[in-house]
Amino acid sequence: MSAPFRIGIAGLGTVGAGVVSLLTENENLITARAGRKIKITAVSARDKARDRGIDLSAYDWVDNPLDIAKRDDVDAVVELIGGTSDPAHGLVQTALESGKHVVTANKALIAHYGDTLAQTAEDNDAILLFEAAVAGGIPIIKALKEGLSANQINSVYGILNGTCNYILTEMRHTGRNFKDVLKDAQAKGYAEADPTFDIGGIDTAHKTCVLSCLAFGLKPHIDSIPVTGIENIEAVDINFAEDFGFRIKLLGAAHLDRKSGNLYISVGPCLIPTDRPIAVVDGVYNAVLLHSDYAGWTLMTGRGAGAEPTASAVVADIIDLAKGNKNAAFSIPTQQLQTPQLADPKAMRSRYYMRFMVKDEPGVIADISAILRDHNISIKGLIQRQRDPDGGYVPVVMTTHHASAGDIHECAQLIGDLPTCKGALCVLRIEEDI
Amino acid sequence: MSAPFRIGIAGLGTVGAGVVSLLTENENLITARAGRKIKITAVSARDKARDRGIDLSAYDWVDNPLDIAKRDDVDAVVELIGGTSDPAHGLVQTALESGKHVVTANKALIAHYGDTLAQTAEDNDAILLFEAAVAGGIPIIKALKEGLSANQINSVYGILNGTCNYILTEMRHTGRNFKDVLKDAQAKGYAEADPTFDIGGIDTAHKTCVLSCLAFGLKPHIDSIPVTGIENIEAVDINFAEDFGFRIKLLGAAHLDRKSGNLYISVGPCLIPTDRPIAVVDGVYNAVLLHSDYAGWTLMTGRGAGAEPTASAVVADIIDLAKGNKNAAFSIPTQQLQTPQLADPKAMRSRYYMRFMVKDEPGVIADISAILRDHNISIKGLIQRQRDPDGGYVPVVMTTHHASAGDIHECAQLIGDLPTCKGALCVLRIEEDI
Repeated sequence: MSAPFRIGIAGLGTVGAGVVSLLTENENLITARAGRKIKITAVSARDKARDRGIDLSAYDWVDNPLDIAKRDDVDAVVELIGGTSDPAHGLVQTALESGKHVVTANKALIAHYGDTLAQTAEDNDAILLFEAAVAGGIPIIKALKEGLSANQINSVYGILNGTCNYILTEMRHTGRNFKDVLKDAQAKGYAEADPTFDIGGIDTAHKTCVLSCLAFGLKPHIDSIPVTGIENIEAVDINFAEDFGFRIKLLGAAHLDRKSGNLYISVGPCLIPTDRPIAVVDGVYNAVLLHSDYAGWTLMTGRGAGAEPTASAVVADIIDLAKGNKNAAFSIPTQQLQTPQLADPKAMRSRYYMRFMVKDEPGVIADISAILRDHNISIKGLIQRQRDPDGGYVPVVMTTHHASAGDIHECAQLIGDLPTCKGALCVLRIEEDI
Repeated sequence: MSAPFRIGIAGLGTVGAGVVSLLTENENLITARAGRKIKITAVSARDKARDRGIDLSAYDWVDNPLDIAKRDDVDAVVELIGGTSDPAHGLVQTALESGKHVVTANKALIAHYGDTLAQTAEDNDAILLFEAAVAGGIPIIKALKEGLSANQINSVYGILNGTCNYILTEMRHTGRNFKDVLKDAQAKGYAEADPTFDIGGIDTAHKTCVLSCLAFGLKPHIDSIPVTGIENIEAVDINFAEDFGFRIKLLGAAHLDRKSGNLYISVGPCLIPTDRPIAVVDGVYNAVLLHSDYAGWTLMTGRGAGAEPTASAVVADIIDLAKGNKNAAFSIPTQQLQTPQLADPKAMRSRYYMRFMVKDEPGVIADISAILRDHNISIKGLIQRQRDPDGGYVPVVMTTHHASAGDIHECAQLIGDLPTCKGALCVLRIEEDI
């Protein structure tokens, strides 16, 4: 058997501690699968004194994480600090420049600087792997880069944020409103104290960016992704969606139109038919749905976050490196990654769900229908269930046939401006073909 | 870029032709992902004259497939002949002995001779890959061997035969009986003219065997798997199962009890709660559900058969070899594969579904309940809906609480022997925890 494969771990939060536990607990199995021992030589984190529930005494403690990248007894640096700034960014860059392999769980870093880092890796005969950056315990990066490597991939859809999926699931099951459920999720540890990053869709955007780069051979393009979070989803919309046969999920969606070369990409809450396998992925679970030219539809679901599933992905990458397998960061040579040609988001045609709050008086529906007719949009389903005896506001909910996003949002604006209407409260895309 | 990676393909049925098409159609993409060109040098099949809809003129035609294994201009042999006998078996053995890598879609061969072949590969510094052997377009073998390589896997469940899943789905949707739907499936090309291998569960057993070997580090043990097919499932059972909140699926199930070291493995129709993600995998789709110690539950679904999904898997393996990646056939050194220690199938405890046809007269239910009580089996749900005014036979359907398979089958026998009963018509395990 070869010499041990030596790693240095920077960052000992829940994931870092999980990686140490996993390497210890499943040592024999991991050695058998890697064909050699995996040995932690050095670790680094902000606070040496903190009790992490793991024994670190066998490893060299390094105060400055950058020093890990410079050690001769480290074959691969495991970056679990997070964030796009230093020390994470500098550590990964320095490690690759020193010809050391890097394993990272840092989706933001890859979504922002993935191409530069991949190029540095290539230039220095090093390998950069980031299975843990997307969908934790689901080996989706490997599926895209290797398992489906013979395929042109046409579309990628993902439920990629467990916090959001948990909140939407709870709202559906309990009928409670967003703020209540968020508070609950925070108490249970399913949402951060500052949840902006998750509920605002930014985390999903990072992951969608990484998936689309791998699927379509693109350079990271995080700034080009329109992002909507779930903050404005109301329990009433979840219920109406169910009435129409749909479920609301925060979806990262990317589709490459091979004819035009246009990339359609977005992050936001969407309606999915309730009978589709991806619609039943509930709670903290993640899912990635792919459409490829030869394999057809593939769906992978599993735990997307947490110490253990993320550690599973990190250590899988380490085992790959220990075996000597060579898989390019983005599956193809970095030079061949293309700058995406973005479709005009307004031109994208879909069905839509819309909810308005209107005065309960004659002629309102006529006004709304006229606006839609003038934009060539046909209504497919309409619900106006409640009546307000005092002439107050009641919801009018509809689904449309296919229309362009531009027309839909123009209509929503015009309808919202009607004197009988209280603004366009909810306009969501329907993803019918997934 | 390195020299082309040269392959010889033996077997040009639908899958073989699909592989040739895929390598041609996605050539640029495959070259970019493999880091070098993949070049077909030789092909072999029974009938040279047959029109396969693909141009074979650029490749050497070889009459005896074994000759492919002996050519100097072949780095890897792609075996798509099928079956456990020669020429398939001899070809794979000879190729590996000659130090050539092998890619095969042959589940039966791996389920019977996988360990010997893997050992031959190891001894000759060759690699044996078989992603296409299980669940076609779903990269499940790679997920088990690499994506989840850090995990101890506890359980594997699979819907692994598209023909059976299509038939069961159609029976549910249309209420038609097994024979009718089978005829239909044959007409549509979803079932073979001789469907025994599929509907009898043998194909599922081969695949379950391969998955369990990879998951638990076991030697192939196909002969130890108890197999039941779907031939005896009646539409009425599908309906009653739905009434109880379950769906009937042909399931390959393997669980390793880490405490005792016992392997529980079986293939047969089971009841799955309808609200589980694996229960909604319908039609020709396949699914594999894994439970691992760190990643938790992972579910992968996709197209399990057909030229294109299978070609996707075959070519993914070829790309892996072209990259120079080294992944052992069974993920660990062949010498370390264990002979499974089989649990007594009678000792396995589950909930059960049972249907009897009984005479519609007083005391029958009392007789049945007494037998169950004497075996310490409690009934959870019972349906006796129809009444027969002429005192004929009516169905009595029940679900039980947990009981051992031995007790259940003994009771079924005793109940079936009652003078008021027409035999135990349907006894199915309930898989509640998946």
